[in-house]
Formats: sequence, structure tokens, C-alpha cells
Amino acid sequence: MVSERAVGERAVGERAVGELRAALPADVVLTDPASTDAYRRDHAGFGPAGVPLCVVRPTSTEQVQEVLRWATRHRVPVVPQGARSGLSGGANAVDGCVVVSMTRMDRILEIDPVDQVAVVEPGVVNAVLSRAVLEEGLFYPPDPSSWEISTIGGNIATNAGGLCCVKYGVTTDYVRGLDVVLADGRLLRTGRRTAKGVAGLDLTRLVVGSEGTLGVVTRATLSLRPAPPPALTVAAVFGAVPAALAAANRIMSSGLSPSLLEYLDATTVAAVQALRDMGLPPDARAMLIAQSDRAGLAEQDVAEMGRICADEGAVDVAVASDAEESALLLTARRMAITALEQIGTLLVDDVAVPRARLADLLAGLERIAGERDVRIACPAHVGDGNTHPTVVFDPTDPAAAERAQLAFADVMRLGLSLGGTITGEHGVGQLKRSLLRTELGEVSHDLQRSIKDLFDPLGILNPGKAL
Amino acid sequence: MVSERAVGERAVGERAVGELRAALPADVVLTDPASTDAYRRDHAGFGPAGVPLCVVRPTSTEQVQEVLRWATRHRVPVVPQGARSGLSGGANAVDGCVVVSMTRMDRILEIDPVDQVAVVEPGVVNAVLSRAVLEEGLFYPPDPSSWEISTIGGNIATNAGGLCCVKYGVTTDYVRGLDVVLADGRLLRTGRRTAKGVAGLDLTRLVVGSEGTLGVVTRATLSLRPAPPPALTVAAVFGAVPAALAAANRIMSSGLSPSLLEYLDATTVAAVQALRDMGLPPDARAMLIAQSDRAGLAEQDVAEMGRICADEGAVDVAVASDAEESALLLTARRMAITALEQIGTLLVDDVAVPRARLADLLAGLERIAGERDVRIACPAHVGDGNTHPTVVFDPTDPAAAERAQLAFADVMRLGLSLGGTITGEHGVGQLKRSLLRTELGEVSHDLQRSIKDLFDPLGILNPGKAL
Repeated sequence: MVSERAVGERAVGERAVGELRAALPADVVLTDPASTDAYRRDHAGFGPAGVPLCVVRPTSTEQVQEVLRWATRHRVPVVPQGARSGLSGGANAVDGCVVVSMTRMDRILEIDPVDQVAVVEPGVVNAVLSRAVLEEGLFYPPDPSSWEISTIGGNIATNAGGLCCVKYGVTTDYVRGLDVVLADGRLLRTGRRTAKGVAGLDLTRLVVGSEGTLGVVTRATLSLRPAPPPALTVAAVFGAVPAALAAANRIMSSGLSPSLLEYLDATTVAAVQALRDMGLPPDARAMLIAQSDRAGLAEQDVAEMGRICADEGAVDVAVASDAEESALLLTARRMAITALEQIGTLLVDDVAVPRARLADLLAGLERIAGERDVRIACPAHVGDGNTHPTVVFDPTDPAAAERAQLAFADVMRLGLSLGGTITGEHGVGQLKRSLLRTELGEVSHDLQRSIKDLFDPLGILNPGKAL
Repeated sequence: MVSERAVGERAVGERAVGELRAALPADVVLTDPASTDAYRRDHAGFGPAGVPLCVVRPTSTEQVQEVLRWATRHRVPVVPQGARSGLSGGANAVDGCVVVSMTRMDRILEIDPVDQVAVVEPGVVNAVLSRAVLEEGLFYPPDPSSWEISTIGGNIATNAGGLCCVKYGVTTDYVRGLDVVLADGRLLRTGRRTAKGVAGLDLTRLVVGSEGTLGVVTRATLSLRPAPPPALTVAAVFGAVPAALAAANRIMSSGLSPSLLEYLDATTVAAVQALRDMGLPPDARAMLIAQSDRAGLAEQDVAEMGRICADEGAVDVAVASDAEESALLLTARRMAITALEQIGTLLVDDVAVPRARLADLLAGLERIAGERDVRIACPAHVGDGNTHPTVVFDPTDPAAAERAQLAFADVMRLGLSLGGTITGEHGVGQLKRSLLRTELGEVSHDLQRSIKDLFDPLGILNPGKAL
């Protein structure tokens, strides 16, 4: 039996949606569950995903303002979405919300080769922008693994990292200014177009990484750099984990400035080799993959990084001499998640620790895997100390799924105990909220909560996520 | 005649100071005007400087907390100070305030060569830190011109730039985490020690550049990099401004990644040559000085940058072949302000514009100089579009001083009209407040004001500065 209250709520919702339909072009508002169901969750796999009241797909800042004013009037929760490629549930719908899908606002408005900036709408896919600027000899560095599908707006919401952050930094380092529609529909302009500027508080970087809880980004001015030459790659296989970590630390201290420095653990190496014979030895305990893109120096850089690996005891070192070989050597890293998916369902964590504590983190993962009776692989952006401990489990076994989730929480606590963070680049979303206050401390958490309330006094922006 | 109210206020002040003395070690609180007068103003030269109730020189975070709790109880304005080398009046005292001078908290607490971080107190002088990390083979890039005297705390307060930002970015790019004493004495810890991290809102970068209006920084965790090799220098003299700007833009687009790219205008070149014969031709209209610090490439980089300058019409190009010659070529830039001070008193502005608008900015400066009957020199961090239009005037002529201030305001408005900012690296302080709202826009200004109120509900932190 449906309660009177539920019927009443549905009627209110239908009236409100009617009002929204009247204010926007016909194709902007979706309410048919056959259409809206696809917008319920991101790639996190876990965590609740509610049923939206409707999905809007605006094509202009003005339409977003219209939606937010409407949401404020009717107290409707607002869930902004990019490509839903996030891994923390940050874009999951909540019951009765309006999902604001930004994928139709996907124009590159400007690429300025003199000032080396791009002005874009948030729905542009990272790879589309990266390729467009490359045609002008320019480079947009942030490259999350999802770059072929994820949007710049989503990258901004999570302050996305990627493989090349070890040299070039993360999304926030490339955002100069934003247009942000606030909860009440006002348009906030942050930042600047100039390379430098210190007028007022840095609201740009306050919004970057705020996971849709402070406003809806509708435009971004991004920094570009001259494109570096294609990178060369070196890959090294180790018989012992400490040797691989020592080599990584030496490479980072060497001044060689690697443009990529990745670590694969034994489980991941074995999974990759099982999926495709790459000649990786069965007793490999760890693998490093590094790149250099320094003009005129890449060849000697990868040779030197190879020598460092050999010197630290690598059992096999392969140095690429051209772009094709380089891509091949990177294949193991690119295949990591796909390879692990062959042996189970994955729960991908995102703990970052000071690089000096990586050995302790990896030892701790072994302990947790034993205690929780799960397998934990651990590919890592080792140059940044940003690891992705990945619990691999049998999804058909409810007990295993539960143990996986307990292990996931243990891993976050382990990261904190080592002076690290619960999330290096994926965001807090739904999955990591339980430990956010522990990481931030009470004073910071309360202050952040107050800032959130200032931007969003009714609490309608992405409720239940992040803060 | 002294009013009853003033006598009453003084009595209240004296009782309050007595309370503060009782709570802190004897040498922390200064009240003798002979001692406190030195703390009244920074290097801005203009703008009001009040008479402080007292000056405190704490040696620990706990003492700073004590001072802030006391200031909150008694509603005493708090003016944090580093070395007072700022150029916007941001550290000037206000009447009846407590100046919190952080120069005694000057310890380098840790330099970690593996994780490439330094943990420091705010009073450490930039040059002291830079030299200490260099001994470990590491590099702290932010290098404001004041680096030999300015403190890291002051650099953080203003988000200081410098000569090498063109390649390495500004202070905020190197701050990972902060300890901040809030207005009510609570201790806020922001950020992290790890290279990456996205848990919660970025309060670190909200505090960086906030000019002492959100709290008092008592500790900072800073990013370091492996030290690059010594830079080589090229200097080029041009007979026409457009040629110099064209060369600068080509160098920035070349992928050569200059670690310094400075511009001197005709007035500055002439002033330098008058102070010291460097063989600069009397008809020089502009000069570029560029450096490269790329390992193994610096020699060919400066040669290539020299070729670009010659190709754009430079009348004289000098390429250094070693560190000594490089330092010599940089002398003209280092002497710029001293040389200009020989011909008058200076009012140094700090406008940044998109690099493509520099020609318009320089043309506008000539127009303003004519309209206001003043001389305006313009050394610039040209690679960043960050210029220092410098009004040179006779301080003994009150009318000239007044015209200089009108020209200073005109220059800021010119910068805004070209899509730029009123301050690229010096901060808003007192001198640029009048145009801050114009630059930020109403929505942003109001929101920033609300954030300020959240951190500092009584408005005691550096009142009358920035926001």
C-alpha cells in the first residue's frame, strides 16, 4: 500500500517538474525512467543510488541558472554529473533529486596559443580537449585514466590526477578561472585569465575538488603549456618490493624529472601476464614503468633510469628506443584494471602516503589481506605516493563482498596512520565520507561545513556526498 | 585637550595589555614606542600607518593562540607581520592594534629529501630556506625580489611570485599544508604532507594570499624539487618595443621553457646605464633578459633564445657562456629599482595582463604618463604578463605626489580594461582596495566577504586590508 504522504510528495514533484518543463526547451528535461535510469550512478559500483525526480541536460549557463533557481524554490536536491566515470559515488543520484548532466555543454570556446589558455564548457571530454590543443602545439597535462571518456567538469569536481601528475601536477594546477552557478542561481565568476593574480581569496581552487557541493561549473579557463616531445619509456621487473621502491625514490631524487613513474605489484603483474603474454617472469614481485619527455634528453634519461633500476637489483630492464616500443612497455600499466577484472570484482581505493612510507603501506596491505581474507592488488602512481589498493573479490559471495568493504575501510585507516590521505585523486564521494572528519580534524571539518553552508544554505547541492 | 573617551580607551588598553603581559614571557610583548614604532609600516611608502597598542613577538604556536584569544576577548585588531617587505601596505599597523611579528618563529623544522618537503615556521627568511634546501640538492622555487629579507610567512600571506615563476609557478604552488591560528585562538590544520590529496575543500590555498585576514600562519609544509643546474643567461637590446614583445611571445611558445624572462623598458634601461656603464645604447627602447636552467640544454637554449631575439630585430644580443657572465647579464634587472630610485621616489604598481595585451598596456602607460604629467617606467616579468609600472616622481613636490597616485589608480584601471588584474603578486593590502570589488564583481566580492566573516566574525584580523 502506498502511503498518503508518498502520494502527496509525488504530486508535489510532478507539479514542480511541470514548472521546470515550462521554463526550459522540451529536450532539456527527462522524466521517463527508461531514460533517467542511466543517470543514477557513476563507476563506483558500491554505495546507494537514488531515483531522480528528473534529469536535465542544459545547453547554456542561463538554463543551469534556471534549474538552480527552481531547485531552490522547491528545495529539490541537485546532483551535477559529467560522464559518471567517477569512482567514489560522487555523481550518484539521490531520491527525488534533479540530476544536472553537463555533457551537452561540450564546446571548446577558445584556444589561445599566445596566452596558452583554453576556455571550455564543462562537458568537453578531456581527450577531445587534449587533442584539440595538441593541434596548436599545446598541452593540457591532467590525464586521469578515464581521460578518453571523462569530462573537464568532472575532472574539476574531483580535482582529477592521472599518470603525468608526477611531473605536471593535477587539475587544480591548470584551472585559472571558473564560472559557477550557485545554489540560488546567481553566477559566480572566479579567478582570472592571466598567468598570475592575487586579488582576493582563491575561490577557484576552493571550487576545484568540491565534488559538486558548492555550485555547478559552467565554464573554465585552463592553463596550457607548449607540447613536449613524445615520451620514451623504460620498464623494469624486480624480484623484491624494497628494490623497486628504492629505485623509484632514486629516480625521483635524480633530477631526471620523469613524466610518468608507475608501480605494479605482483598480483597485478601476474594478472596482466595471464591476460596477455608479455614475457613477464612468474616470480616478478614488482614492476616499475617510467617515462621521460625531456626534449633532446629522453633517450639518455630512460637509459639512466634503467641503470638506476638495474643498480637497485632489477632482474629485467627494457628501454624503449622509439614511440612504438614506448607504448608497448606502457601496455602493462594500461591493462592493469582490465587484467584484475578477469579474476574478480574490484573495489579500487585511492590512498596517498608520503613516498617514504610506501614500504609500510605495502606491508600493511598484506596484513589486511590476511586478516580480512581478501586479495589486494596495488597498482600505484609511485612517484606521487598515490596508490590504488584494489580489493579483488567474488561478487557472487555476499560474505566476500562484505569482507572486501571492511578491507577497503582498513586500507583508508592504514593510509591515515602513515601520515597519508584517504583520497589522492578520486574524491570522497559517498565511499570515503566515514573517515573524512578523522582526516581533516574537527576544526577544519567544521569550518569546511560552514563554508558549504555559506554557498548552499538549503543544503540542496549534492547532499550526502563529500562533506 | 584629550577627550574623556580617549583617556578611557587608553585605560582599557593598558589594563588589557597588562593581562597579555601576565600570560606571556616578558620579552614577547613590546609597548615602548621607541621599540614599537619600527613595526608600524611595510615598504609600500603610501597609505596610513596606525599606532599599535603593543607588538608581540611570539616564539610558539601556543603563544600565538594566547594572543588571538586575548584579542578576541578584548576586540583588539590583530595585524600579522613578517619582514614588512610588502609593497601594498598589507602589514601596516592600525590604531590600537596588536602587531603580531612572526620573525622569531624562524626555525626550519625539517627538510625531507625523500619526500621533498620542508616543514618550517613562518618567520624563516626565504633565502635562508632556499640555501638550506640547496645543501640537500633541493630547490624551493618561489623567489620574490625581496627573497633575501622576506619571510616565508609573508610570502604565503601575499602568495608571492618572483623571477622564476615563469617556469616554476608561485608560492601557492609549493604550499601543501598550513597550521593557522584562527581569530578565536583555535588551531586549524589544513592540507597534507603527501604530493596529492583531494579530501575536503582546499583551505590551504584559501589561506595562501589572504593577507593575514583569515588567521595567523604558524607552520607550513612546503614542496621542494630536485635542484636544477645553474642557469645561463641571454640579454637582448631592442630598438622598438613591439620587436621585444614579439620575441618574448616566441620564446614562450618555443617549448624552450625559460626559467626567467624579464623585460626592461627604455626608462629603466637608461636609469640602469646612468647608474653604471653597462654599454647599453642610448637609443635602447627595450631589453629582454632570459635564462634557461635545463640540464644539458641550457647552452643551446640561450643560443636559440638569442637567435629568436635577433630574428625579431634585436640590435644587440649577448649570450653568456658561464655562470659568471650570466650573473653579469642579470645585473641590469637586479639594479632596476635602485637605478630608478636615483631619479625620483617610486610608486610601484603590479598589474598583470594576458601576454597578448602587453603592447596595449605599454601604449596605455604612455598615454597615462602624458595625461598625468608623470614618468612611468615599466620593468616586467614579461613571460607571465606581470608588469610593474613604476611611477617616478619628485617627493618634495606635493602636486607631483598627488599626480603620481592618480596615475597609479589609472594604471590599475587600464590593467582591468585589458582583461588583467590589479595585482599579479604584491597583494591588495591598503593600496589596491578601491578597485578590488570592481575586479572581483559583486557576487564574488560578497561571497569572499562572507567567508572572511566566517573565519573572523568580530573583524579583528588585519582590518582595512584586502577585502
